[in-house]
Amino acid sequence: MSTIVQHNDLQAFITSVYEKLGVPGPDAQLAAIIAVASDLRGVESHGVVMLPRKADYMLKGLIEPKPKIKVERESPATALIDGGNGLGAVVASQAMELCIQKAKEVGAGFVSVHDSNHYGIAGYYSMMALEHDMIGIAMTNTTPIVAPTFGRKAIIGTNPLSVAAPAGAERPFVLDMATSVVPSGKMTVYKIKGEDIPEGWAIDSEGKAMHNPADVHTMLYSRTGGGILPLGGLGELFGGHKGYGLSLMVDIFSGILSGSAFGPNVYPSKDGKKAPGNVGHFFGALSIEAFSPLDDFKSRMDEVIENLKNAPKMPGQERIYIHGEKEYEIEEKRREEGIPLHDQVITSLEELATRLEMPFPF
Amino acid sequence: MSTIVQHNDLQAFITSVYEKLGVPGPDAQLAAIIAVASDLRGVESHGVVMLPRKADYMLKGLIEPKPKIKVERESPATALIDGGNGLGAVVASQAMELCIQKAKEVGAGFVSVHDSNHYGIAGYYSMMALEHDMIGIAMTNTTPIVAPTFGRKAIIGTNPLSVAAPAGAERPFVLDMATSVVPSGKMTVYKIKGEDIPEGWAIDSEGKAMHNPADVHTMLYSRTGGGILPLGGLGELFGGHKGYGLSLMVDIFSGILSGSAFGPNVYPSKDGKKAPGNVGHFFGALSIEAFSPLDDFKSRMDEVIENLKNAPKMPGQERIYIHGEKEYEIEEKRREEGIPLHDQVITSLEELATRLEMPFPF
Repeated sequence: MSTIVQHNDLQAFITSVYEKLGVPGPDAQLAAIIAVASDLRGVESHGVVMLPRKADYMLKGLIEPKPKIKVERESPATALIDGGNGLGAVVASQAMELCIQKAKEVGAGFVSVHDSNHYGIAGYYSMMALEHDMIGIAMTNTTPIVAPTFGRKAIIGTNPLSVAAPAGAERPFVLDMATSVVPSGKMTVYKIKGEDIPEGWAIDSEGKAMHNPADVHTMLYSRTGGGILPLGGLGELFGGHKGYGLSLMVDIFSGILSGSAFGPNVYPSKDGKKAPGNVGHFFGALSIEAFSPLDDFKSRMDEVIENLKNAPKMPGQERIYIHGEKEYEIEEKRREEGIPLHDQVITSLEELATRLEMPFPF
Repeated sequence: MSTIVQHNDLQAFITSVYEKLGVPGPDAQLAAIIAVASDLRGVESHGVVMLPRKADYMLKGLIEPKPKIKVERESPATALIDGGNGLGAVVASQAMELCIQKAKEVGAGFVSVHDSNHYGIAGYYSMMALEHDMIGIAMTNTTPIVAPTFGRKAIIGTNPLSVAAPAGAERPFVLDMATSVVPSGKMTVYKIKGEDIPEGWAIDSEGKAMHNPADVHTMLYSRTGGGILPLGGLGELFGGHKGYGLSLMVDIFSGILSGSAFGPNVYPSKDGKKAPGNVGHFFGALSIEAFSPLDDFKSRMDEVIENLKNAPKMPGQERIYIHGEKEYEIEEKRREEGIPLHDQVITSLEELATRLEMPFPF
């Protein structure tokens, strides 16, 4: 049902697709590295599976292969970037690089971005800070598929946020989470498994609980009402207003601050046709040395992680995980053994290669 | 069952208590303003109800009335502050002022704090940024009363975070949330109502669901295991690992970065006796003008808020709330009509006045 592909081969294929589409070599390679990083870490929903859609957008003129990325406003610790409607991965990497540079100079750097596109896995950008011994932050607004608390229509995004911080002997902490109860990719997982989704994940246009993951997908793409619920679920009893608030917070940093599309207007449909996404992002980097001797910080990180790992477990559980730990373990395995790509993904990539008149290597 | 007290009278009483305890006049007044701000906004758990405990800590030498607050490290956009074991409100206000000053100079300011104490309502500090047309951020670590995902012992805090952003015609957005499914104050609310808490709020030392709010309080203060669940609830199905991750993120910014206590060591019990809290905080301010013309930002905020308010509602619901809105409405009413203080609170304040040999005005 799936084919094992080596990550280097996958990266070479994605690079050549983007080059064929007119993306300059270094940008094509960067976008490929970031897509493969997602598949390596087990976040299949944000990896190569998105390539056919991105290629289609580029062919339709909805994404610029050679964007004019501009710093529009700048202060020592901040900047506003116009992404020129380029590939999200290319725009986001530049924005995060600028944060890191600013954090080196003045201790902290924060950059808000407009006119970008889906940037893939948020954790890639926050993790860019790690090799500079910084804490990294990445956020983005997204297609509106989440209903606010007490609402019954999706008008906010799953608006993910990621924070990465280095440790010493332990692996880094890498939080990378949608602010909704689940990301939309979970519907696909349940669809493939042929299982109903739990009550508390999604509601229909009348506010009733939905159970069939395929119906949820249909509803979300039709934009006729209903939506995935925010983290904390329905109403306020279990904190649904908190997930809704986090989603709004991410949109304020990413969309409102940058002047990109926000709320229901990200990836708009105009006259039934797609228009450029005008996605907004937000990035930050904090120099650890600006606050604390680095070794002290790292040994405290190790201590907090060890405390958690050694704490008493729930019956039936053998581990308490640190955020990012599962993904690091999957990556180790996949770098060694290759990445399994579902037959549907292989088929869609083969169709893309045919469309672009390119050889297909898998 | 309760007494109505005017906010000015309450503020004067709290100020005089702190002055009696040796806190300098301006600091006493500031701490009183921040406590009253909490009661005005309807966050009773963080208002004057905490005064007897804080006074007790001060009388026992666990909080310094005249702390030596020091900037220990500094870069143009960042600082590390030693709170000198002072009142959290006094330390936190100074730290947030420094963020605002830095954001005026270089666009952004971030300050991490160690050796502080419970600072009351997080939203007060994030909202300090609003009058400077900035986005404000406030976080703090707390007493460990939350169990991590797959754990059955409370070793992380409710670690709240607050983000405030100004709007134009609309009221500001003020997110102020514990990263747990509920704050511990909710147990008190259910205890007073005489109701069971819903399954999914707290577990006992064996990992079983708890129903009696009084039992939860007893368990939390005994530190024998069990805990409140993170936002997203038990396990991973509804995103409990996300709430756990947000709690850990807040501790990294507040505790690990500053070198304060963190995880299970905040407000430690040593040999059965209390020791100084060594609480850590984290604050940030972002200049909006550094990213966008201010009027554009504010009109976009108005648009996103109006979009939300006008969206289709769930059956039985008449409003979709913006974060902070309920609290602004309560504050308006309470400024006019006074603050209702429960008889138990009045009694505890009267006992405090007697202990301090002060007149009691209510």
